[in-house]
Amino acid sequence: MARFAAAVHIVTTDGPAGRFGFTASAVCSVTDNPPTLLVCLNRASRMHLAFQRNGVFCVNTLAADQQELAAMFAKRTGTRMKARFALPIWEMLKTGAPAVRHALACFDCRISDVKEVGTHWVFFGEVMEIHLQRRNSALLYLHRTYRALEMVRPK
Amino acid sequence: MARFAAAVHIVTTDGPAGRFGFTASAVCSVTDNPPTLLVCLNRASRMHLAFQRNGVFCVNTLAADQQELAAMFAKRTGTRMKARFALPIWEMLKTGAPAVRHALACFDCRISDVKEVGTHWVFFGEVMEIHLQRRNSALLYLHRTYRALEMVRPK
Repeated sequence: MARFAAAVHIVTTDGPAGRFGFTASAVCSVTDNPPTLLVCLNRASRMHLAFQRNGVFCVNTLAADQQELAAMFAKRTGTRMKARFALPIWEMLKTGAPAVRHALACFDCRISDVKEVGTHWVFFGEVMEIHLQRRNSALLYLHRTYRALEMVRPK
Repeated sequence: MARFAAAVHIVTTDGPAGRFGFTASAVCSVTDNPPTLLVCLNRASRMHLAFQRNGVFCVNTLAADQQELAAMFAKRTGTRMKARFALPIWEMLKTGAPAVRHALACFDCRISDVKEVGTHWVFFGEVMEIHLQRRNSALLYLHRTYRALEMVRPK
């Protein structure tokens, strides 16, 4: 699956079960009506319980200069969850799941459905709020390496 | 959702319900065990019935020089389905769904589950065979425009 070039996202949650986040490329838009996307999360991760209990998540699509953040939430640095969320980069949209202020896009979602598939959970989220930024390049992941892709200039 | 940079795929099927294909960016890997990916397809398209009845599909991840093929299967050219499949680019893997011979990757799948989400179907496919090519660049779709991304050289 490393041959798929994919955008890189940090997916977060917050609520009674705590504040968590992870780096994901297995994110996909599903439908516009109602606006829905999905996120896959390994069941081996304890985080899935928190996502389910909180019932909300925010998908933060990263810009090319946010590679360090991607590495941090992919557990490639030793930074603990609490310290990650102490960085001065977070804001809150409708659901309360942490949004990355300078991400390309934040999709703030309420979990509408959950499906177990093999080793993973698939969370379907109805988009409650979208926050877009004008940034010049997107962060991509291809062949297990981060890459930058320049954006087409908005008209 | 146009802010997601996404790989571009042609998803095909063949079987008793006929041979069909469409261009998709809403494709996502789900789990390695068993190797599973998912594809979203608008229910407004009559094709979903053929996919369900045939029970198989092949995801063909396109290289940068396959943009014309992407446009054709996105109905941007007037080329009929029969003529598209008469092109000398197709081969067959395990399931019989048409595979693009020079695609970056072909994921030949048996449909393991189907889920209705709003206006779309989500097809889950267990990967029965994978065919990989050494190509230099991937086709991407970002901001409703096709782009090329250079691949990292394989070691």
